[in-house]
Amino acid sequence: MLPDHQLLRIPGPSPIPPSVQRAMSQPMIGHRGQETKDLLHRIKPKLKPIFGTEQDVLIITGSGTSGLETAVVNTVKPGDEVLIIVTGAFGDRFVKICNAYGIKTHRYDVDWGAAISPDNIKKYLIEHPEIKVVFSTYCETSTGVLNPVQELAQVVHQNSDALVVVDGVSCVGAVETEMDEWGIDVLVTGSQKAMMLPPGLTFVAASERAWKVIEENEQPRFYLDLKKYRDNLVKDSTPFTPAVSLLFGLEQVLKLLDEEGLEQVYARHQLMTKMTRAAFSGLDIPLLTSDRAASPTVTAIKPVDFQAEDLRKILKEDFGLAVAGGQQHMKGEIFRIGHMGYCSPADVLQIVSIIEIGLKKIGNPIELGSGTRAAQEAYLHLNF
Amino acid sequence: MLPDHQLLRIPGPSPIPPSVQRAMSQPMIGHRGQETKDLLHRIKPKLKPIFGTEQDVLIITGSGTSGLETAVVNTVKPGDEVLIIVTGAFGDRFVKICNAYGIKTHRYDVDWGAAISPDNIKKYLIEHPEIKVVFSTYCETSTGVLNPVQELAQVVHQNSDALVVVDGVSCVGAVETEMDEWGIDVLVTGSQKAMMLPPGLTFVAASERAWKVIEENEQPRFYLDLKKYRDNLVKDSTPFTPAVSLLFGLEQVLKLLDEEGLEQVYARHQLMTKMTRAAFSGLDIPLLTSDRAASPTVTAIKPVDFQAEDLRKILKEDFGLAVAGGQQHMKGEIFRIGHMGYCSPADVLQIVSIIEIGLKKIGNPIELGSGTRAAQEAYLHLNF
Repeated sequence: MLPDHQLLRIPGPSPIPPSVQRAMSQPMIGHRGQETKDLLHRIKPKLKPIFGTEQDVLIITGSGTSGLETAVVNTVKPGDEVLIIVTGAFGDRFVKICNAYGIKTHRYDVDWGAAISPDNIKKYLIEHPEIKVVFSTYCETSTGVLNPVQELAQVVHQNSDALVVVDGVSCVGAVETEMDEWGIDVLVTGSQKAMMLPPGLTFVAASERAWKVIEENEQPRFYLDLKKYRDNLVKDSTPFTPAVSLLFGLEQVLKLLDEEGLEQVYARHQLMTKMTRAAFSGLDIPLLTSDRAASPTVTAIKPVDFQAEDLRKILKEDFGLAVAGGQQHMKGEIFRIGHMGYCSPADVLQIVSIIEIGLKKIGNPIELGSGTRAAQEAYLHLNF
Repeated sequence: MLPDHQLLRIPGPSPIPPSVQRAMSQPMIGHRGQETKDLLHRIKPKLKPIFGTEQDVLIITGSGTSGLETAVVNTVKPGDEVLIIVTGAFGDRFVKICNAYGIKTHRYDVDWGAAISPDNIKKYLIEHPEIKVVFSTYCETSTGVLNPVQELAQVVHQNSDALVVVDGVSCVGAVETEMDEWGIDVLVTGSQKAMMLPPGLTFVAASERAWKVIEENEQPRFYLDLKKYRDNLVKDSTPFTPAVSLLFGLEQVLKLLDEEGLEQVYARHQLMTKMTRAAFSGLDIPLLTSDRAASPTVTAIKPVDFQAEDLRKILKEDFGLAVAGGQQHMKGEIFRIGHMGYCSPADVLQIVSIIEIGLKKIGNPIELGSGTRAAQEAYLHLNF
């Protein structure tokens, strides 16, 4: 295999655009100097349309999980009751965080691969008026489901006083997100998925209603105290040393998103999902999720007549193509293709045509080229 | 289209591996210091197996054309007679250089797309014993022909005293080259093709027999005087300021070639050519060259029922995919795909699947996926 040639198509971290890589290699600057202030000043307004909010989007140096924990410790305290809708491994992450803090959690499980049904949540909330926060996942990375968070937020607000917290780590930046309009109270994302950066930053915004709760919340917290980030960002600063090189990269990412246009970015991701799904339908290999529940950033495939892990091994060995396996009880049952951020329809064609070879090599009797053809047809249908 | 996402598949310059890009961004060093001497000392032995020679491979800062001119001005002088075998635009380049120097040139034209027939050259040499040097092209970039330089050199040496000069710019590093064993007297290549570097370096080696001619040749020359490069390289130095960052990159390229192994590198290129050719055969679109004459680094396609330039335009606009057009009288008649250096079978699949979409978009009634399938079958046939 050609050395130094990796095809990274897991659902994050995702590949870094060359211009972002170059931007990150700028000489280091002092984090308390004017240059960093100027950088944050330029970045600040450009994050808002990605979240669909007029609120400041706060930048915390940490992983996506630190962003989820930020959402928890700022909105609830021990003894508070919360509803956590679990559609996969990352809904489960909220449960673990809340348990660590002694929060009283109502766990609402949805079958892996299915999306949240807002109607069911409505019933649950009416039966449990003591719930203060509803935690949910926008794109569930472990299954490739995009949950209907707009409808969910509407149902929550119509039937309770609870805040709506949304984990958007694996899709914000790739899919339309209207935090203010939809009534999302806290929205979290990470740097290493649709935001085309290395891991290391998490982005959090809160609604006015959420800020009232945050300000009054007695839960002890320090590094993840959102008020500190808000009060500093007003002055174009951060409460703690930020990952400066990631901020350099972020500015370039925002330029690229501007250049392409957010609507076009979202359309490209929809196109890539449709191409990927068409390919596997063309190959007669089952997808984990329905068309309706499908995320534009990650697709999970649930083979019936071959081992997902056999295929993953061949793809990595022969082509350096990394796709993800399943998590938790889905381990070995599914594989997942990331098509987010710095990924094009041309990359989808490459992934599909490689996978066809991989399938042949593990003895699967597919018709070579049939998945590629289906993806090409989907491209032409949506793009001609 | 996704910004900052270019697919460079012209027959050079070719894409740069990320680790080579990183190597080239090392801090600058003095070109007369010990660090540069050490760098040249490490590079020197590793270039020899690529040329298949025990001679030192000299490194000149300049384009491939400067390497061709080096071969001319070091081996011949005004009034000398030379034979130039022209199989395309780059054979023609030798003619232009020789003409500029008042060399008496015998131009032997071969149809574009065909390879040199050593038997014909034999006849020509027997009829023209005054010829001192035979200039030829290993891979003719403008047509995608790999000329049989081994047989050519044998025929020349059996039938004359002429030196054999070979332009290997667009293939050395990607195809087996045994300069010493085959009897090539001067071999030239460039940095920006199979050598996976940016343009800026040309590499030249000469046989013992050639050195005798070079030493006695009265042709005035200064920057391109091979003796200066030889006498300096013995001392791990260069006569003039070298392109230091390209030397940094070169060392990393040599590491990558070592890691993969030259035999495997050559096999990969053969595989890529077979896949590319199979794809167009599968699509029923004519290739310019025969299987036997095909270069492992570049493939020329000669469409009959669509305009090459229409296709090239769509590929660039829709996917950022750059393939080359035709040169000189082949302009508009052919297009050329580079598959050399930092290029993998996975990249060939991507190129082919994109081209299928492009063909549909310009109204060509191909069967989508049929070219990809043929390329996949070629891969499995050679690789399973």
